[in-house]
Amino acid sequence: MKSIHESISAVVATDAAVFASVAARLDDKTKPRKSLGRLETLACRVAAIQGTTSPRVDRKAIVVMGADHGVAREGVSAYPQEVTGQMLLNFARGGAAINVLARRAGAQVVVVDMGVAGELAAVPEIRDRKVALGTASMTKGPAMRGDQLHAAIEAGIAEAHALADDGVNLIGIGEMGIGNTTSASAITAVFAGLDPAEVTGRGTGVDDEGWQRKVAAIRTALSVNRPRADDALDVLAKVGGFELAGLCGVALGAASRRVPIMIDGFITGAAAWAAVKLCPAVADYLIASHRSVEAGHTVILRALDQLPLLDLDLRLGEGTGTALAMPLVDAALAILDEMATFSSAQVSDSGA
Amino acid sequence: MKSIHESISAVVATDAAVFASVAARLDDKTKPRKSLGRLETLACRVAAIQGTTSPRVDRKAIVVMGADHGVAREGVSAYPQEVTGQMLLNFARGGAAINVLARRAGAQVVVVDMGVAGELAAVPEIRDRKVALGTASMTKGPAMRGDQLHAAIEAGIAEAHALADDGVNLIGIGEMGIGNTTSASAITAVFAGLDPAEVTGRGTGVDDEGWQRKVAAIRTALSVNRPRADDALDVLAKVGGFELAGLCGVALGAASRRVPIMIDGFITGAAAWAAVKLCPAVADYLIASHRSVEAGHTVILRALDQLPLLDLDLRLGEGTGTALAMPLVDAALAILDEMATFSSAQVSDSGA
Repeated sequence: MKSIHESISAVVATDAAVFASVAARLDDKTKPRKSLGRLETLACRVAAIQGTTSPRVDRKAIVVMGADHGVAREGVSAYPQEVTGQMLLNFARGGAAINVLARRAGAQVVVVDMGVAGELAAVPEIRDRKVALGTASMTKGPAMRGDQLHAAIEAGIAEAHALADDGVNLIGIGEMGIGNTTSASAITAVFAGLDPAEVTGRGTGVDDEGWQRKVAAIRTALSVNRPRADDALDVLAKVGGFELAGLCGVALGAASRRVPIMIDGFITGAAAWAAVKLCPAVADYLIASHRSVEAGHTVILRALDQLPLLDLDLRLGEGTGTALAMPLVDAALAILDEMATFSSAQVSDSGA
Repeated sequence: MKSIHESISAVVATDAAVFASVAARLDDKTKPRKSLGRLETLACRVAAIQGTTSPRVDRKAIVVMGADHGVAREGVSAYPQEVTGQMLLNFARGGAAINVLARRAGAQVVVVDMGVAGELAAVPEIRDRKVALGTASMTKGPAMRGDQLHAAIEAGIAEAHALADDGVNLIGIGEMGIGNTTSASAITAVFAGLDPAEVTGRGTGVDDEGWQRKVAAIRTALSVNRPRADDALDVLAKVGGFELAGLCGVALGAASRRVPIMIDGFITGAAAWAAVKLCPAVADYLIASHRSVEAGHTVILRALDQLPLLDLDLRLGEGTGTALAMPLVDAALAILDEMATFSSAQVSDSGA
């Protein structure tokens, strides 16, 4: 199994020459230059990430990691904790939103139990990477021990390598974990140096009192743990979660293999931010699928200098935003592959 | 052939009861209520338009109408006029952006010559609805005569009926016509009561001097013709174009058959606005695919109370935005059809 350090060392800069070469090819297609806007940039970015002027995203996967959070016991969520495991089983049976949308996008769904509180019925569709039966409550001390953090991140790295070995060339990341917007808000508050209230939203739909409890829990957690903003491992261990750490590992592992990583909403954004804190070069491997209604997500997208492809008021998670945005990547690469040039189509060019 | 008046009379209100019924079904799916945001609204809207709780968009078409504009001779475009016909041939051969993106979206492309200046090589892929060899220049007088306007709109109505008869259940509209952003800007200035400079952009990429010429041409056209803002037929005849009038007809015809109409950018937006001016009930049948970089498009979207699905800095036209957004409609309906409910999946519901 690759260590965190090995993965960080293996991440190279994306290829600027390839980016420029693909941009030039797009300029010769029968359309005003740059008139497909961000779709053209997307094609260039995927090519630069993969390091080839013939980029491919014909093997897509969405890694959905699930885990439970001790802080869920503080009444921070609209849903009971058992929903985490129930939803993982729903993912395994193919009935959840992510299954429906991934099928439409032509993406495989990889469901990973990173630490659900309780034994799931042994179903082959759920990969067992369980670190523990949920984290400890961050309001009482660190959410996890250092060895657990390393195990979770390295499990994510291993999952990314397995997919890359299998030929997967676009990885979306998603999550399920009752209480995990509380964790993502805590991480974001620390990294951004903002007050928890500024980066805490309604999650799956908590009411006003629930929101107050959520902000209070984060304040307590930050005051009890004092995570160090310049040490992403410290932050993840103290206020993170097993699925967040695992997804941070997926981002590191995918970037080390030159596979583009599509992030979903707030929680996957926080995990990706942690990966970028550990390895700044990862930032160029990220594609933001959408802007979530969670205010903290916008803070993360700005910090990562990412403009999301969609803005549809989504707040579901599971990787659903990545499944919705993947067809845009297909479209961007189809333009590069299939469109006629001015000369081949005998169309007069303006040079504009 | 259906008359304009017959089509207007045939447009009924979309079905509010169906909208509510589909929204309730979505609330029982295994996800926090409304957590798929605008995707859920989209499913409800398509159902309300089609008047059925089992909406379908499995037969998609994009109608791309091409025509030339007399005003193109005033140096308002970055491209020479012959590009209109060249691009229609490119559409017929399948090498343009719209062909590539429509293939990915699973949509048929219907190419219609509404009035290209010059005879196109007789290719069966181009439907001949030619009204004339381009419009007259709106800077000298009306762009077209009243009989030409009626012929163009009714051709569009006929195309919509032919598609509906063929089972098409989602129609995108697109266009090609050197000089047609000048026409769309003039229409928008009149309908919105704004100064031409506020609603005139760079089109396919005109430079500063070209932009000045474009605004000046529109000012001249408005002063020579004095179109009446409360009379959409007067506006279309005086400063419109054959493809704009034809697409206005497609919108009227599609709405009269309860087929949702997806609009692309600025020009198709102006055509759809004209249809709504003629028949306000058409507004509820429109789905805005994206927000163009043309400033006038945002004015139109606001007037039509439309929030676009995408915002990717596109400025190509051809219907490309509709092809990019169609997979989101597929996704919205797949959620309705395929997702498990709380009870079927044995997931605990919060009621949130």
